[in-house]
Parts: sequence; C-alpha cells; structure tokens
Amino acid sequence: MSLAGKHGTIWGVGLGPGDPDLMSLRAARLIGKARHVAYFRKAGRKGHARGIVEGLLRADVLEFPMEYPVTTEIPVTDPAYNAVLSAFYAQVSDHLAGLALGGDDVVVLCEGDPFFYGSFMHLHSRLAGRVPVQVVPGITGMSAAWTATDLPITWGDDLLTVLPATLPEAELAQRLAGSDAVVVMKIGTNMPKLRRALAQAGRTDETWLIQYASQPGEQVMRLTEADEGRMPYFTIALIHGQGRRP
Amino acid sequence: MSLAGKHGTIWGVGLGPGDPDLMSLRAARLIGKARHVAYFRKAGRKGHARGIVEGLLRADVLEFPMEYPVTTEIPVTDPAYNAVLSAFYAQVSDHLAGLALGGDDVVVLCEGDPFFYGSFMHLHSRLAGRVPVQVVPGITGMSAAWTATDLPITWGDDLLTVLPATLPEAELAQRLAGSDAVVVMKIGTNMPKLRRALAQAGRTDETWLIQYASQPGEQVMRLTEADEGRMPYFTIALIHGQGRRP
Repeated sequence: MSLAGKHGTIWGVGLGPGDPDLMSLRAARLIGKARHVAYFRKAGRKGHARGIVEGLLRADVLEFPMEYPVTTEIPVTDPAYNAVLSAFYAQVSDHLAGLALGGDDVVVLCEGDPFFYGSFMHLHSRLAGRVPVQVVPGITGMSAAWTATDLPITWGDDLLTVLPATLPEAELAQRLAGSDAVVVMKIGTNMPKLRRALAQAGRTDETWLIQYASQPGEQVMRLTEADEGRMPYFTIALIHGQGRRP
Repeated sequence: MSLAGKHGTIWGVGLGPGDPDLMSLRAARLIGKARHVAYFRKAGRKGHARGIVEGLLRADVLEFPMEYPVTTEIPVTDPAYNAVLSAFYAQVSDHLAGLALGGDDVVVLCEGDPFFYGSFMHLHSRLAGRVPVQVVPGITGMSAAWTATDLPITWGDDLLTVLPATLPEAELAQRLAGSDAVVVMKIGTNMPKLRRALAQAGRTDETWLIQYASQPGEQVMRLTEADEGRMPYFTIALIHGQGRRP
C-alpha cells in the first residue's frame, strides 16, 4: 500500500480475554518489541488492557494512556455524550497519526478482539486512509466464558445470537426466546432487566453467568444460584445450544 | 480434581483460524511439548488442523489421525449418518481415554475454538468424567474473516447473529433481515440458497464473502462481485453492523 514505506503503522492488537497466556503469538511479539504502546482507561485507573501486559513491555517503552473523558457520568442517550467522545477519539487519533507520520509504529492494546465491540474501531475509522493501520484479531471474552462453563456453546446447526443487554426489555425477551444459543454482553446495571426478559422468555433455568472469564477472580454460576442486583461490567450471560449431536 | 494425579489429560487445543502466528501462547506451548497429538481428518487427506502445526511438533511425536468414516457420502438427515459417526466418536474417545488412563497427556488439535461448532465437543462429551479434559479457546474463523474485511463487525448496541447456511431458506431470509450484524457459516453447497435468502432479505449489497481467512489463498470480496455457484467449505459470509458510533 502506498501509505507504507517511511510511515509507521498503528497496530490494533487483540489481547484476548484477559489471561496473558491466551494472547496470540503475533500479539505477544508485537507487544514485546513495541517502543510506543497506547491503551484506553478510565481516568485515575491503571487500565485493564495495560494490566494484561504487565511485565511484557520493553524497559524503554513510551506509554500513551487514552483516558475516557466520560464513562457513566453522561447517559449514552444524551447528545453531549457522543459529542464529548467524538472529540476525544479525534484528538487521540491525531496524536497516533502524528507518531505514525513521524515514522514510529504504535501498538494499541485492545481487550478481546479489536473489531468485536471494541473501542479501537473508533480510532480505526479515523486513522484508516491517513496512515497504515493493521489489526490482529484476538480470542473474545465470550469464547473464554463458554470455555469456563466447560460446555460447548453451539452444536450442529445451532443458531447463536449475541445480544447487548442495553436493548429494551421486550426486544431482549423476544430475542432470547428466538435463538438456540445466546451470549449476552454489556450486563452491569442492566441485570434486573435481563432477569425479567429471561423469565419472560422462559429461559432462566438454562442461563449461566460468567464473571472475569480467564482472569483472576473468574466466577461461573447458574443464574438461579446468583445473587440479585448489579453485576460487574465483565459479566457475560450464556445459554448453550442443544443442537444435533451424533 | 480427583481424576487428576496419575492420569494424563486430554487437551482440546484451539489452533485459531489457520495462521499459526494467531495461535495462543498456551496452545503453542502445549503443541510444542506434546508427545501425543490427535486430529480429525478426511480419509486420504493430510488434515487441515495437522497442516497448521507443520514444523511445530516434537521429532518423536506420536500422531493419532482420527479419520471421519463419512463426510458427504451419507446425508446428515439419514439416521445412518448419526449411527456411523456416533460409533466413530465412541471408538476414538476410548482410544484417547486409554492413553490418559495410562498416564499420557494428549493434545487434540482443533481448528478455531473447540467449543464453537467444533468436532472436539463430540469427544469432550464422551470423555468428561472419565479422564481429565481441558479446553484452550482459540481465535475463531469468523474473527479472522471480519479482520480480513478491515471493518468492525459490531458497533455500540449492534446485535450479531451467527447462522448456519444449512437452515431452510425461509428461516435464513427472516434471520438475515432481523439482525444488525450477521455471520453465515457452513456455506459450501448452500451458496445458491443463501443468495436467494439474502436477496429476499434485501441484504445482498451489504454482504461480504471471505474464503480461507488468515490462510494462504485468503480472498475477500463483495457478494455482488463473486462468481455464482459453489464456494469452498472455508467460506464465511458477513454483514457488518452499522450501530451507534461517536
């Protein structure tokens, strides 16, 4: 591609679900040799992605933490939320583009898989065409979650639906009822709504909850055994498919 | 667990989408030190999973190729298909259990992620409880496919549906119309039916086809640019979500 040559590359590198041992060989190599490493984090925190690569970075690494200007202070439905985040993504993209135009490669640390509900895509859409951008896929959090249940998610001709728990309750219930296997993401404060939708769909007894899959503190439980109330952000709910099996 | 101790472990190891560099660190380590390696293959072929680990095995490795007794010779709807395959899975599971009971570890090579439409699950269900079984998740073929398109599959609150192209045409069309993002697996000879279902759902123009993602011979094209007719088994169709993005 004509952009390559003297320009550096922005690498969106999937770290996988959290256990550093589940990173790909390519990801580990890129991270281990990177001079510039960038990652998103909540202001005042170390950053979850940064935590995964602890001990794996060069001694002389230059770190660029990209701190979200808001997380839950403004509702996502407020137009101000989009405006503030858009300005933030534009600003950090400009910084990364500047590094690449100056000839430096940058590794952007991405939890899970960069193109599957990841924040990196907001940089990718602003950088593509300006500087070389490459993406390294990763093992998703949902793969680690179903592995933690020690049961397959899909058999034979099972249909799998991945649902954000942010959907309205009625739609959640309808989707939960209409799929063989289900993965529910983005649970957190949506847990009471998800419980009601699962009950309405008649699928409560089949549902598993997995918290911090592949990470320290991993928890696997049936929904019927779980406490009521709010769940950690890294909670995934699963319903396993029961399709054809010889 | 009480099964461990003097027994060996059967490891279901996800190899990822095909590029050996996209294997996890854990997978690479287990494969590199394995004395026993097992893998499925079509009779008379080398085996796709075996090909991915070429050059990575110990010189003194003992290989156990598990050759499918049928692939397409008997339709999956014929009860004989299930009977023949069930006997085959029981037989190879017994062989693997014998190795583990004798104290040997065995690495079973699994394309993609073992618990996501993988054949390993048919061994897992027959081995669990008899001998120690562990699963290492992998990067799925669909992750490699959307990475190859250089576009994110899901944004914000997008809903993703994973559909086997083996479903009836009317159901395929309804599911294609009713989801933001879509991944279609198991295409092969179902391509003409999938084309009709996409047209019926009004989604032909949004559809991408990816063949051999991350592997030699990778092809990425719009459906509207593709030749008519049969596709390789390793073809995935994608429709990208277009959800909220700041």
